[in-house]
Amino acid sequence: MSLIYFDNNATTGVLPEVFEAMAPYFTEKYGNASSMHRFGGGNKKAIELARAKVADLINANAAEVVFTSGGTEADSSAIYSALQFYPNKKHIITSAVEHPAVLEVFKKLGKEGYRVDFIGVDADGRFNMAQYKAVLDKDTALVSVMWANSETGTIFPIKDICALAHEAGALFHTDAVQAVGKIAVDAKEAGVDMLSCSSHKINGPKGIGALYIRQGLRFFPFMVGGHQERLRRAGTENVPAIVGFGEAARIAKETLFLYEDKVRVLRDNLENGLIKEIPDCRVNGDKDHRLPNTSNISFGYVEGESILMMLDEYNICASSGSACTSGSLEPSHVLMAMGVPFQFAHGSIRFSLGKFNTEAEVEQVIKVLPPIIKRLREISPFHGEKRACAARQ
Amino acid sequence: MSLIYFDNNATTGVLPEVFEAMAPYFTEKYGNASSMHRFGGGNKKAIELARAKVADLINANAAEVVFTSGGTEADSSAIYSALQFYPNKKHIITSAVEHPAVLEVFKKLGKEGYRVDFIGVDADGRFNMAQYKAVLDKDTALVSVMWANSETGTIFPIKDICALAHEAGALFHTDAVQAVGKIAVDAKEAGVDMLSCSSHKINGPKGIGALYIRQGLRFFPFMVGGHQERLRRAGTENVPAIVGFGEAARIAKETLFLYEDKVRVLRDNLENGLIKEIPDCRVNGDKDHRLPNTSNISFGYVEGESILMMLDEYNICASSGSACTSGSLEPSHVLMAMGVPFQFAHGSIRFSLGKFNTEAEVEQVIKVLPPIIKRLREISPFHGEKRACAARQ
Repeated sequence: MSLIYFDNNATTGVLPEVFEAMAPYFTEKYGNASSMHRFGGGNKKAIELARAKVADLINANAAEVVFTSGGTEADSSAIYSALQFYPNKKHIITSAVEHPAVLEVFKKLGKEGYRVDFIGVDADGRFNMAQYKAVLDKDTALVSVMWANSETGTIFPIKDICALAHEAGALFHTDAVQAVGKIAVDAKEAGVDMLSCSSHKINGPKGIGALYIRQGLRFFPFMVGGHQERLRRAGTENVPAIVGFGEAARIAKETLFLYEDKVRVLRDNLENGLIKEIPDCRVNGDKDHRLPNTSNISFGYVEGESILMMLDEYNICASSGSACTSGSLEPSHVLMAMGVPFQFAHGSIRFSLGKFNTEAEVEQVIKVLPPIIKRLREISPFHGEKRACAARQ
Repeated sequence: MSLIYFDNNATTGVLPEVFEAMAPYFTEKYGNASSMHRFGGGNKKAIELARAKVADLINANAAEVVFTSGGTEADSSAIYSALQFYPNKKHIITSAVEHPAVLEVFKKLGKEGYRVDFIGVDADGRFNMAQYKAVLDKDTALVSVMWANSETGTIFPIKDICALAHEAGALFHTDAVQAVGKIAVDAKEAGVDMLSCSSHKINGPKGIGALYIRQGLRFFPFMVGGHQERLRRAGTENVPAIVGFGEAARIAKETLFLYEDKVRVLRDNLENGLIKEIPDCRVNGDKDHRLPNTSNISFGYVEGESILMMLDEYNICASSGSACTSGSLEPSHVLMAMGVPFQFAHGSIRFSLGKFNTEAEVEQVIKVLPPIIKRLREISPFHGEKRACAARQ
């Protein structure tokens, strides 16, 4: 049974051509890029070439891109830098549906004395602009709002949210980890001060990400030590990973059209097929502004983890919420913020497709999943209640 | 002209068997280790196997090892955790000869209100125990002192320094990045609370390191977000790099004896050969307690960078100070702390050998370097002064 990988928002495989570009930097061209000799120092060129490619993917200048160990570090770096930029401002704003890499930092800052507002979303996952406008004030140091939601794919109006932050005199950061490589992301046009992205979401290697820092913005490094990255991120340059990220970014830009031309069609077919076959289910997220690859479906009265385990028997990979929160028994904080009823939130599955998925895979999932849900509902106490309830009415 | 790589303290090449172990995790077994499905979750086993190997190299329990993006992150993580452990203590101690990953964090904390003592060293680079004892007090939250110096190879008496810190009620961290894999490092026996190490110094990949956290010690994460690493380090697990680090650690332990049996002999031959051939030079560091692979030699009256450039013409890689401080025009802070006279400190070269160097390479350097120094001295204004001075006497 070959693998059906519908979990591309969790991570993606490294493309063969990306791996090929990286490989020589492990065993042959292994020199330290900060060394004086050509063997090491020569790797600086490879790094700068990669930086230009990553910058190109988000329409930035190369000098605006700093490599980090991933999206999480990029997020922390942006947030802590903003707080040092405005040491006297003590209010920060984010959304209630951020990735934990932003959300947990804000919660921690809340405990350390910052006034924190978590902007809510409506039933379709749309950002509550009115609430946001109401809480923005002169004491706001930073607004950090994600470009697209990792669980539902909902795309936020980043340009508008950013403009309002700037009007209030606050800095604006966006976690664009899920958006970059799936839709056009233009850092310059959006006007953001800082933007996080990650390599392993776009068929590059894990352990490398980038933070866009708008030209002219004073930046305070999160990781201090050596002189690397023009004093903006200390630590020996991870040359192979940087080279791989660059190559992945180049390919992501060239093949971005596939998300509209192919992935969206597959995703819609999957979603429509499942809804048609399975009663009591609902699609979560803003259908008009959504990543073309993501479908988050709640199957009422069943446990998401049970669905995943049964799909796993068919070698089908999907997820319930984010991999970064797995191990937690709580239902998704994103769906909770959207007010998805408990008996639906618990049975939510995120299907996140990629450029390499096929129509045959979609058909296989549409064939396999309905009987799984049926069987699980037959043994579900919640569903029993529902049946009893319906019988009484 | 084949490469002569005498810069192993800057970084090392990934061993072919390490690369082979990592490779499948890029393109085939690329799942997110925190995913529910077997395709991703199965990678957790590979991570735990690697953790056990890294733990074994430093005589720790696997549960005491947390993977980070490298030595720099491990250092920052240790330092900031200690400060949160003792929120009311405002004094911290380190040595004047630390790697920038520790030194720069301490300088930053000094600016933020901490009382910081930088313990000096003597002319041979030995830790000033008397000064240390005199400054330790009840307000000391943390002592962070490196196991072995990256520039001179001087090994500090970590067990004694740690015991004194504990007597004073302070936590103790050691940056063991240069020691691990070159000499026996036993975290348990030394009694340290935290210890940093790095993969790329021991023929593993870049972008991965580890922090040892003594069992029972409360730890406050530096990187917060997802649930990875038992909530001690957020961010998608860098599976291939972790697997590579584990394999490199296993091999490092098995081949540790080569540092005494082979590398020390090569290093001594190099050092003695150069001293014999070149007048006006001195070896920096504690000759009795020194890493077996490191030789730091000051060639009086010449510029280190000129020497490196000329060695580079012969495809010989060495360094002046640390790669992490390159780009700076200051002489090495380590040699300055040792009181090495200016006209010697500027002409200092670190040769750091590895298990794969050969006697023929040593002979080639002994052949090539003396005429380089001679030529450079002929055009050096400093050396001219020295000649004039000698003529007057």
